[in-house]
Amino acid sequence: MGGGRGRRRGLLITLEGIEGSGKTSQGARLAKRLREDNYRVVETREPGGTPLAEDIRHLLLAVSPSQGRHERMTPASEALLILACRSQHVAQVIEPALQEGAVVLCDRFLDSTLAYQGYGRGLDLQVLRTLNELATGGLTPDLTLLFDIPVTIGLARRRKQERQHGVERNRIDRETRRFHARVRKGFLALAAEDPDRIRIVDGKPDPDLVGTQVNALVHRFFSARIKKTSKPRSR
Amino acid sequence: MGGGRGRRRGLLITLEGIEGSGKTSQGARLAKRLREDNYRVVETREPGGTPLAEDIRHLLLAVSPSQGRHERMTPASEALLILACRSQHVAQVIEPALQEGAVVLCDRFLDSTLAYQGYGRGLDLQVLRTLNELATGGLTPDLTLLFDIPVTIGLARRRKQERQHGVERNRIDRETRRFHARVRKGFLALAAEDPDRIRIVDGKPDPDLVGTQVNALVHRFFSARIKKTSKPRSR
Repeated sequence: MGGGRGRRRGLLITLEGIEGSGKTSQGARLAKRLREDNYRVVETREPGGTPLAEDIRHLLLAVSPSQGRHERMTPASEALLILACRSQHVAQVIEPALQEGAVVLCDRFLDSTLAYQGYGRGLDLQVLRTLNELATGGLTPDLTLLFDIPVTIGLARRRKQERQHGVERNRIDRETRRFHARVRKGFLALAAEDPDRIRIVDGKPDPDLVGTQVNALVHRFFSARIKKTSKPRSR
Repeated sequence: MGGGRGRRRGLLITLEGIEGSGKTSQGARLAKRLREDNYRVVETREPGGTPLAEDIRHLLLAVSPSQGRHERMTPASEALLILACRSQHVAQVIEPALQEGAVVLCDRFLDSTLAYQGYGRGLDLQVLRTLNELATGGLTPDLTLLFDIPVTIGLARRRKQERQHGVERNRIDRETRRFHARVRKGFLALAAEDPDRIRIVDGKPDPDLVGTQVNALVHRFFSARIKKTSKPRSR
Protein backbone atom coordinates (compact mmCIF):
# COMPACT_ATOMS: atom_id res chain seq x y z
CA MET A 1 0.00 0.00 0.00
CA GLY A 2 2.92 2.29 0.82
CA GLY A 3 3.17 5.98 1.59
CA GLY A 4 0.16 7.72 3.02
CA ARG A 5 2.18 9.99 5.29
CA GLY A 6 2.32 13.71 5.15
CA ARG A 7 0.27 16.52 6.54
CA ARG A 8 -3.07 15.32 5.42
CA ARG A 9 -5.53 14.04 7.97
CA GLY A 10 -5.37 10.38 8.95
CA LEU A 11 -7.97 7.71 8.41
CA LEU A 12 -10.48 6.15 10.74
CA ILE A 13 -11.12 2.48 10.02
CA THR A 14 -13.63 0.74 12.26
CA LEU A 15 -13.99 -3.00 12.83
CA GLU A 16 -17.49 -4.25 13.50
CA GLY A 17 -19.33 -7.51 13.95
CA ILE A 18 -20.96 -9.75 16.50
CA GLU A 19 -19.06 -11.70 19.17
CA GLY A 20 -16.78 -14.32 17.64
CA SER A 21 -16.76 -12.69 14.20
CA GLY A 22 -12.97 -12.39 14.29
CA LYS A 23 -12.85 -8.59 14.10
CA THR A 24 -10.39 -8.20 16.98
CA SER A 25 -7.79 -10.67 15.73
CA GLN A 26 -8.20 -9.46 12.14
CA GLY A 27 -7.71 -5.90 13.41
CA ALA A 28 -4.38 -6.92 14.96
CA ARG A 29 -3.29 -8.54 11.67
CA LEU A 30 -4.28 -5.47 9.70
CA ALA A 31 -2.39 -3.19 12.09
CA LYS A 32 0.76 -5.29 11.68
CA ARG A 33 0.47 -5.20 7.92
CA LEU A 34 -0.12 -1.45 7.78
CA ARG A 35 2.90 -0.88 10.01
CA GLU A 36 5.02 -3.00 7.69
CA ASP A 37 3.88 -0.60 4.97
CA ASN A 38 5.11 2.32 7.08
CA TYR A 39 1.78 3.69 8.14
CA ARG A 40 1.50 5.10 11.61
CA VAL A 41 -1.25 2.98 13.18
CA VAL A 42 -3.20 3.57 16.39
CA GLU A 43 -5.15 0.52 17.61
CA THR A 44 -7.98 1.21 20.00
CA ARG A 45 -11.32 -0.16 21.08
CA GLU A 46 -14.71 0.81 22.43
CA PRO A 47 -16.10 1.14 24.93
CA GLY A 48 -12.90 2.37 26.60
CA GLY A 49 -9.63 3.87 25.45
CA THR A 50 -9.09 6.55 28.11
CA PRO A 51 -8.88 6.32 31.93
CA LEU A 52 -12.40 7.72 32.38
CA ALA A 53 -13.83 5.67 29.50
CA GLU A 54 -12.28 2.50 30.93
CA ASP A 55 -13.95 3.21 34.28
CA ILE A 56 -17.27 3.65 32.48
CA ARG A 57 -16.61 0.43 30.53
CA HIS A 58 -16.19 -1.34 33.82
CA LEU A 59 -19.66 -0.16 34.93
CA LEU A 60 -21.06 -1.17 31.53
CA LEU A 61 -19.79 -4.71 31.41
CA ALA A 62 -20.22 -5.66 35.05
CA VAL A 63 -22.42 -8.68 35.31
CA SER A 64 -25.61 -7.53 36.98
CA PRO A 65 -27.79 -7.77 38.90
CA SER A 66 -27.30 -11.31 40.15
CA GLN A 67 -23.53 -11.20 40.55
CA GLY A 68 -22.94 -7.48 40.83
CA ARG A 69 -23.92 -4.88 43.33
CA HIS A 70 -25.73 -2.81 40.70
CA GLU A 71 -29.37 -2.88 39.79
CA ARG A 72 -30.43 -3.87 36.27
CA MET A 73 -29.22 -1.39 33.66
CA THR A 74 -31.83 0.27 31.45
CA PRO A 75 -31.29 0.17 27.66
CA ALA A 76 -31.14 3.98 27.71
CA SER A 77 -28.38 3.99 30.36
CA GLU A 78 -26.42 1.45 28.41
CA ALA A 79 -26.54 3.66 25.30
CA LEU A 80 -25.77 6.85 27.25
CA LEU A 81 -22.77 5.29 29.00
CA ILE A 82 -21.38 3.91 25.75
CA LEU A 83 -21.70 7.34 24.15
CA ALA A 84 -20.04 9.03 27.13
CA CYS A 85 -17.11 6.66 26.57
CA ARG A 86 -17.10 7.56 22.89
CA SER A 87 -17.01 11.28 23.58
CA GLN A 88 -13.90 10.88 25.77
CA HIS A 89 -12.33 8.47 23.32
CA VAL A 90 -12.84 10.75 20.30
CA ALA A 91 -11.59 13.85 22.15
CA GLN A 92 -8.56 12.23 23.78
CA VAL A 93 -7.44 9.49 21.39
CA ILE A 94 -9.07 9.39 17.96
CA GLU A 95 -9.13 13.06 16.94
CA PRO A 96 -5.55 13.77 18.07
CA ALA A 97 -4.32 10.67 16.19
CA LEU A 98 -6.22 11.69 13.06
CA GLN A 99 -4.81 15.21 13.30
CA GLU A 100 -1.34 13.66 13.31
CA GLY A 101 -2.14 11.66 10.22
CA ALA A 102 -2.38 8.21 11.78
CA VAL A 103 -4.52 5.33 10.59
CA VAL A 104 -6.80 4.67 13.55
CA LEU A 105 -8.14 1.11 13.80
CA CYS A 106 -11.05 1.14 16.19
CA ASP A 107 -12.65 -2.08 17.41
CA ARG A 108 -16.37 -1.14 17.58
CA PHE A 109 -17.76 2.36 16.98
CA LEU A 110 -20.98 3.94 15.70
CA ASP A 111 -22.33 0.84 13.97
CA SER A 112 -22.09 -1.28 17.12
CA THR A 113 -24.23 1.31 18.89
CA LEU A 114 -26.85 1.19 16.14
CA ALA A 115 -26.74 -2.63 15.94
CA TYR A 116 -26.65 -3.45 19.68
CA GLN A 117 -28.60 -0.60 21.26
CA GLY A 118 -30.83 0.04 18.24
CA TYR A 119 -31.58 -3.30 16.56
CA GLY A 120 -30.69 -5.36 19.67
CA ARG A 121 -32.31 -3.35 22.47
CA GLY A 122 -34.94 -1.61 20.40
CA LEU A 123 -33.91 2.02 20.96
CA ASP A 124 -34.80 4.50 18.24
CA LEU A 125 -32.08 4.66 15.58
CA GLN A 126 -32.55 8.37 14.95
CA VAL A 127 -32.17 9.16 18.66
CA LEU A 128 -29.00 7.05 18.73
CA ARG A 129 -27.64 8.97 15.74
CA THR A 130 -28.36 12.25 17.54
CA LEU A 131 -26.51 11.00 20.63
CA ASN A 132 -23.62 9.85 18.48
CA GLU A 133 -23.44 13.24 16.80
CA LEU A 134 -23.25 14.86 20.23
CA ALA A 135 -20.51 12.46 21.34
CA THR A 136 -18.37 12.60 18.19
CA GLY A 137 -19.03 16.05 16.77
CA GLY A 138 -20.00 14.27 13.55
CA LEU A 139 -16.87 12.16 13.06
CA THR A 140 -17.68 9.32 10.66
CA PRO A 141 -15.43 6.34 9.88
CA ASP A 142 -13.70 6.50 6.50
CA LEU A 143 -14.04 2.74 6.15
CA THR A 144 -15.84 0.11 8.17
CA LEU A 145 -15.05 -3.58 7.93
CA LEU A 146 -18.05 -5.61 8.98
CA PHE A 147 -17.05 -9.17 9.87
CA ASP A 148 -20.15 -11.20 9.25
CA ILE A 149 -20.71 -14.64 10.68
CA PRO A 150 -23.77 -16.72 11.61
CA VAL A 151 -24.65 -16.28 15.28
CA THR A 152 -24.25 -20.00 16.10
CA ILE A 153 -20.70 -20.06 14.75
CA GLY A 154 -19.77 -16.73 16.35
CA LEU A 155 -21.06 -17.69 19.79
CA ALA A 156 -19.41 -21.13 19.59
CA ARG A 157 -16.06 -19.47 18.81
CA ARG A 158 -16.55 -17.06 21.67
CA ARG A 159 -17.21 -19.97 24.09
CA LYS A 160 -14.06 -21.67 22.87
CA GLN A 161 -12.04 -18.48 23.51
CA GLU A 162 -13.56 -18.31 26.97
CA ARG A 163 -12.48 -21.86 27.74
CA GLN A 164 -9.01 -21.51 26.22
CA HIS A 165 -8.12 -18.12 27.62
CA GLY A 166 -10.26 -18.04 30.73
CA VAL A 167 -12.13 -14.99 29.40
CA GLU A 168 -15.13 -14.18 31.58
CA ARG A 169 -18.52 -13.72 29.98
CA ASN A 170 -19.59 -10.12 30.44
CA ARG A 171 -23.08 -8.70 30.62
CA ILE A 172 -23.44 -8.41 26.82
CA ASP A 173 -22.04 -11.91 26.13
CA ARG A 174 -24.75 -13.29 28.36
CA GLU A 175 -27.52 -12.01 26.15
CA THR A 176 -29.74 -14.50 24.38
CA ARG A 177 -29.04 -15.95 20.96
CA ARG A 178 -32.08 -14.10 19.69
CA PHE A 179 -30.55 -10.81 20.82
CA HIS A 180 -27.32 -11.55 18.93
CA ALA A 181 -29.37 -12.53 15.87
CA ARG A 182 -31.08 -9.11 15.91
CA VAL A 183 -27.67 -7.46 16.22
CA ARG A 184 -26.30 -9.37 13.21
CA LYS A 185 -29.36 -8.47 11.17
CA GLY A 186 -28.87 -4.85 12.21
CA PHE A 187 -25.26 -4.81 11.04
CA LEU A 188 -26.30 -6.21 7.67
CA ALA A 189 -29.07 -3.62 7.33
CA LEU A 190 -26.61 -0.82 8.08
CA ALA A 191 -24.19 -2.20 5.48
CA ALA A 192 -26.98 -2.33 2.90
CA GLU A 193 -27.79 1.34 3.58
CA ASP A 194 -24.21 2.55 3.35
CA PRO A 195 -22.30 0.17 1.07
CA ASP A 196 -19.64 2.74 0.22
CA ARG A 197 -18.44 2.97 3.79
CA ILE A 198 -19.33 -0.45 5.22
CA ARG A 199 -17.70 -3.43 3.49
CA ILE A 200 -18.80 -6.90 4.49
CA VAL A 201 -16.07 -9.47 5.14
CA ASP A 202 -17.08 -13.12 5.31
CA GLY A 203 -15.87 -14.14 8.78
CA LYS A 204 -16.45 -17.90 8.36
CA PRO A 205 -13.24 -19.07 6.59
CA ASP A 206 -9.99 -19.66 8.41
CA PRO A 207 -8.18 -16.53 9.62
CA ASP A 208 -5.59 -16.52 6.80
CA LEU A 209 -8.31 -16.47 4.17
CA VAL A 210 -10.24 -13.76 6.00
CA GLY A 211 -6.99 -11.80 6.22
CA THR A 212 -6.62 -12.02 2.45
CA GLN A 213 -10.12 -10.58 1.99
CA VAL A 214 -9.32 -7.75 4.40
CA ASN A 215 -6.08 -7.01 2.58
CA ALA A 216 -7.81 -6.78 -0.75
CA LEU A 217 -10.56 -4.51 0.58
CA VAL A 218 -8.20 -2.16 2.37
CA HIS A 219 -5.87 -2.08 -0.61
CA ARG A 220 -8.72 -1.08 -2.92
CA PHE A 221 -9.87 1.54 -0.45
CA PHE A 222 -6.41 3.11 -0.15
CA SER A 223 -5.87 3.12 -3.90
CA ALA A 224 -9.22 4.74 -4.60
CA ARG A 225 -8.59 7.31 -1.89
CA ILE A 226 -5.13 8.22 -3.11
CA LYS A 227 -6.48 8.72 -6.62
CA LYS A 228 -9.31 10.87 -5.34
CA THR A 229 -7.70 13.02 -2.70
CA SER A 230 -3.97 13.50 -3.11
CA LYS A 231 -1.15 14.04 -5.50
CA PRO A 232 2.08 12.07 -5.17
CA ARG A 233 4.50 13.92 -2.90
CA SER A 234 8.02 14.52 -4.16
CA ARG A 235 10.72 13.09 -1.93
CA MET B 1 -52.81 20.40 52.68
CA GLY B 2 -54.11 17.04 53.88
CA GLY B 3 -55.19 13.90 52.09
CA GLY B 4 -53.74 13.09 48.67
CA ARG B 5 -53.62 9.35 49.26
CA GLY B 6 -55.44 6.76 47.28
CA ARG B 7 -54.85 4.88 44.10
CA ARG B 8 -54.09 7.83 41.94
CA ARG B 9 -50.57 8.41 40.72
CA GLY B 10 -48.23 10.40 42.93
CA LEU B 11 -46.59 13.73 42.24
CA LEU B 12 -43.12 14.63 41.13
CA ILE B 13 -41.87 17.90 42.60
CA THR B 14 -38.39 18.99 41.58
CA LEU B 15 -36.15 21.46 43.39
CA GLU B 16 -33.84 23.49 41.22
CA GLY B 17 -31.38 26.35 41.52
CA ILE B 18 -27.71 27.24 41.55
CA GLU B 19 -25.30 26.26 44.32
CA GLY B 20 -26.18 27.96 47.60
CA SER B 21 -29.75 28.72 46.54
CA GLY B 22 -31.13 26.82 49.53
CA LYS B 23 -33.00 24.18 47.51
CA THR B 24 -31.64 21.22 49.46
CA SER B 25 -32.46 22.51 52.93
CA GLN B 26 -35.84 23.84 51.76
CA GLY B 27 -36.53 20.42 50.25
CA ALA B 28 -35.92 18.80 53.64
CA ARG B 29 -38.30 21.29 55.31
CA LEU B 30 -40.95 20.66 52.69
CA ALA B 31 -40.62 16.90 53.11
CA LYS B 32 -41.10 17.22 56.85
CA ARG B 33 -44.18 19.38 56.41
CA LEU B 34 -45.75 17.08 53.83
CA ARG B 35 -45.18 14.10 56.11
CA GLU B 36 -46.88 15.94 58.94
CA ASP B 37 -49.82 16.28 56.57
CA ASN B 38 -49.77 12.51 56.06
CA TYR B 39 -48.36 12.41 52.57
CA ARG B 40 -46.01 9.61 51.71
CA VAL B 41 -42.83 11.43 50.67
CA VAL B 42 -39.78 10.09 48.87
CA GLU B 43 -36.77 12.41 48.99
CA THR B 44 -34.12 11.84 46.38
CA ARG B 45 -31.48 13.68 44.41
CA GLU B 46 -29.64 13.73 41.13
CA PRO B 47 -27.23 12.70 39.90
CA GLY B 48 -27.51 9.51 41.95
CA GLY B 49 -30.23 7.66 43.80
CA THR B 50 -29.39 4.04 42.88
CA PRO B 51 -26.20 1.98 43.35
CA LEU B 52 -25.25 2.31 39.67
CA ALA B 53 -26.23 5.98 39.49
CA GLU B 54 -24.18 6.73 42.62
CA ASP B 55 -21.14 5.10 40.99
CA ILE B 56 -21.70 7.26 37.90
CA ARG B 57 -22.11 10.32 40.16
CA HIS B 58 -18.74 9.54 41.64
CA LEU B 59 -17.16 9.64 38.16
CA LEU B 60 -19.04 12.86 37.40
CA LEU B 61 -18.01 14.86 40.43
CA ALA B 62 -14.43 13.69 40.77
CA VAL B 63 -12.16 16.67 40.63
CA SER B 64 -10.18 16.32 37.43
CA PRO B 65 -7.73 16.35 35.85
CA SER B 66 -5.28 17.94 38.29
CA GLN B 67 -6.29 15.94 41.35
CA GLY B 68 -7.89 12.90 39.78
CA ARG B 69 -6.62 10.13 37.62
CA HIS B 70 -9.13 10.94 34.86
CA GLU B 71 -8.60 13.12 31.84
CA ARG B 72 -10.72 16.24 31.34
CA MET B 73 -14.39 15.41 30.84
CA THR B 74 -16.06 16.63 27.65
CA PRO B 75 -19.34 18.58 27.98
CA ALA B 76 -21.03 15.80 25.99
CA SER B 77 -19.79 13.09 28.39
CA GLU B 78 -20.97 15.11 31.36
CA ALA B 79 -24.47 15.33 29.88
CA LEU B 80 -24.53 11.67 28.83
CA LEU B 81 -23.41 10.47 32.27
CA ILE B 82 -25.99 12.64 34.03
CA LEU B 83 -28.71 11.25 31.80
CA ALA B 84 -27.56 7.67 32.36
CA CYS B 85 -27.98 8.36 36.09
CA ARG B 86 -31.43 9.77 35.41
CA SER B 87 -32.52 6.73 33.47
CA GLN B 88 -31.60 4.41 36.35
CA HIS B 89 -33.10 6.79 38.88
CA VAL B 90 -36.43 7.09 37.06
CA ALA B 91 -36.70 3.33 36.46
CA GLN B 92 -35.67 2.24 39.94
CA VAL B 93 -36.83 4.99 42.28
CA ILE B 94 -39.06 7.70 40.84
CA GLU B 95 -41.52 5.71 38.69
CA PRO B 96 -42.10 3.00 41.33
CA ALA B 97 -42.72 5.69 43.98
CA LEU B 98 -45.12 7.55 41.69
CA GLN B 99 -46.94 4.32 40.93
CA GLU B 100 -47.43 3.88 44.65
CA GLY B 101 -48.85 7.37 44.98
CA ALA B 102 -45.94 9.03 46.76
CA VAL B 103 -44.91 12.66 46.53
CA VAL B 104 -41.39 12.48 45.14
CA LEU B 105 -39.17 15.44 46.01
CA CYS B 106 -36.20 15.38 43.69
CA ASP B 107 -33.21 17.66 44.21
CA ARG B 108 -32.22 18.54 40.60
CA PHE B 109 -33.79 17.02 37.48
CA LEU B 110 -34.45 18.05 33.87
CA ASP B 111 -34.04 21.80 34.40
CA SER B 112 -30.58 21.41 35.92
CA THR B 113 -29.52 19.55 32.79
CA LEU B 114 -30.84 22.32 30.56
CA ALA B 115 -29.37 25.06 32.76
CA TYR B 116 -25.94 23.52 33.47
CA GLN B 117 -25.22 21.49 30.33
CA GLY B 118 -27.24 23.70 27.98
CA TYR B 119 -26.89 27.32 29.15
CA GLY B 120 -23.72 26.65 31.17
CA ARG B 121 -21.71 24.39 28.84
CA GLY B 122 -23.31 25.47 25.58
CA LEU B 123 -24.81 22.15 24.46
CA ASP B 124 -27.85 22.30 22.21
CA LEU B 125 -31.06 22.49 24.26
CA GLN B 126 -33.06 20.45 21.77
CA VAL B 127 -30.47 17.64 21.82
CA LEU B 128 -30.57 17.69 25.63
CA ARG B 129 -34.36 17.41 25.55
CA THR B 130 -34.06 14.41 23.21
CA LEU B 131 -31.59 12.76 25.59
CA ASN B 132 -33.86 13.49 28.52
CA GLU B 133 -36.82 11.96 26.71
CA LEU B 134 -34.73 8.82 26.13
CA ALA B 135 -33.70 8.70 29.79
CA THR B 136 -37.11 9.41 31.34
CA GLY B 137 -39.58 8.05 28.81
CA GLY B 138 -41.14 11.54 28.84
CA LEU B 139 -41.67 11.91 32.60
CA THR B 140 -42.12 15.61 33.39
CA PRO B 141 -42.23 17.16 36.88
CA ASP B 142 -45.69 18.17 38.07
CA LEU B 143 -44.19 21.15 39.86
CA THR B 144 -40.73 22.67 39.92
CA LEU B 145 -39.57 25.06 42.62
CA LEU B 146 -36.77 27.23 41.30
CA PHE B 147 -34.82 28.79 44.15
CA ASP B 148 -33.36 31.95 42.68
CA ILE B 149 -30.46 33.81 44.19
CA PRO B 150 -27.73 36.10 42.86
CA VAL B 151 -24.59 34.14 42.04
CA THR B 152 -22.38 36.10 44.48
CA ILE B 153 -24.69 35.34 47.40
CA GLY B 154 -25.16 31.69 46.39
CA LEU B 155 -21.46 31.01 46.03
CA ALA B 156 -20.65 32.83 49.30
CA ARG B 157 -23.18 30.61 51.11
CA ARG B 158 -21.72 27.53 49.52
CA ARG B 159 -18.21 28.51 50.67
CA LYS B 160 -19.54 29.02 54.18
CA GLN B 161 -21.13 25.54 54.12
CA GLU B 162 -17.82 24.13 52.94
CA ARG B 163 -15.97 25.74 55.84
CA GLN B 164 -18.57 24.82 58.44
CA HIS B 165 -19.23 21.26 57.38
CA GLY B 166 -15.96 20.40 55.71
CA VAL B 167 -17.77 19.82 52.41
CA GLU B 168 -15.31 19.34 49.56
CA ARG B 169 -15.65 21.41 46.41
CA ASN B 170 -16.48 19.09 43.54
CA ARG B 171 -15.77 19.54 39.85
CA ILE B 172 -18.91 21.61 39.22
CA ASP B 173 -18.42 23.84 42.28
CA ARG B 174 -15.02 24.76 40.91
CA GLU B 175 -16.48 26.31 37.79
CA THR B 176 -16.08 30.03 37.24
CA ARG B 177 -18.52 32.65 38.49
CA ARG B 178 -19.35 33.40 34.86
CA PHE B 179 -20.41 29.77 34.37
CA HIS B 180 -22.74 29.93 37.38
CA ALA B 181 -24.14 33.23 36.07
CA ARG B 182 -25.04 31.55 32.75
CA VAL B 183 -26.69 28.72 34.68
CA ARG B 184 -28.79 31.14 36.73
CA LYS B 185 -29.83 33.00 33.60
CA GLY B 186 -30.75 29.65 32.04
CA PHE B 187 -32.97 28.68 34.96
CA LEU B 188 -34.78 32.01 34.73
CA ALA B 189 -35.25 31.60 30.96
CA LEU B 190 -36.72 28.12 31.50
CA ALA B 191 -39.09 29.49 34.15
CA ALA B 192 -40.21 32.24 31.78
CA GLU B 193 -41.00 29.64 29.11
CA ASP B 194 -42.95 27.34 31.39
CA PRO B 195 -44.46 29.45 34.18
CA ASP B 196 -47.21 26.93 34.93
CA ARG B 197 -44.74 24.25 35.96
CA ILE B 198 -41.75 26.26 37.19
CA ARG B 199 -42.40 28.59 40.12
CA ILE B 200 -39.68 30.98 41.19
CA VAL B 201 -38.94 31.22 44.91
CA ASP B 202 -36.82 34.12 46.12
CA GLY B 203 -33.91 32.39 47.84
CA LYS B 204 -32.39 35.51 49.43
CA PRO B 205 -34.44 35.91 52.66
CA ASP B 206 -33.76 33.87 55.76
CA PRO B 207 -34.79 30.21 55.60
CA ASP B 208 -38.00 30.63 57.60
CA LEU B 209 -39.29 33.27 55.23
CA VAL B 210 -38.30 31.19 52.19
CA GLY B 211 -40.10 28.24 53.78
CA THR B 212 -43.26 30.35 54.06
CA GLN B 213 -43.08 31.14 50.34
CA VAL B 214 -42.61 27.44 49.53
CA ASN B 215 -45.55 26.53 51.73
CA ALA B 216 -47.83 28.99 50.03
CA LEU B 217 -46.79 27.85 46.54
CA VAL B 218 -47.15 24.15 47.27
CA HIS B 219 -50.45 24.74 49.02
CA ARG B 220 -51.85 26.59 46.00
CA PHE B 221 -50.57 23.86 43.70
CA PHE B 222 -52.19 21.05 45.71
CA SER B 223 -55.48 22.90 45.97
CA ALA B 224 -55.62 23.63 42.26
CA ARG B 225 -54.74 20.04 41.49
CA ILE B 226 -57.34 18.54 43.77
CA LYS B 227 -60.00 20.77 42.21
CA LYS B 228 -58.92 19.77 38.73
CA THR B 229 -58.23 16.08 38.97
CA SER B 230 -60.04 14.31 41.76
CA LYS B 231 -63.27 13.93 43.62
CA PRO B 232 -63.27 13.55 47.40
CA ARG B 233 -63.05 9.87 48.30
CA SER B 234 -65.55 8.43 50.72
CA ARG B 235 -64.01 6.76 53.73
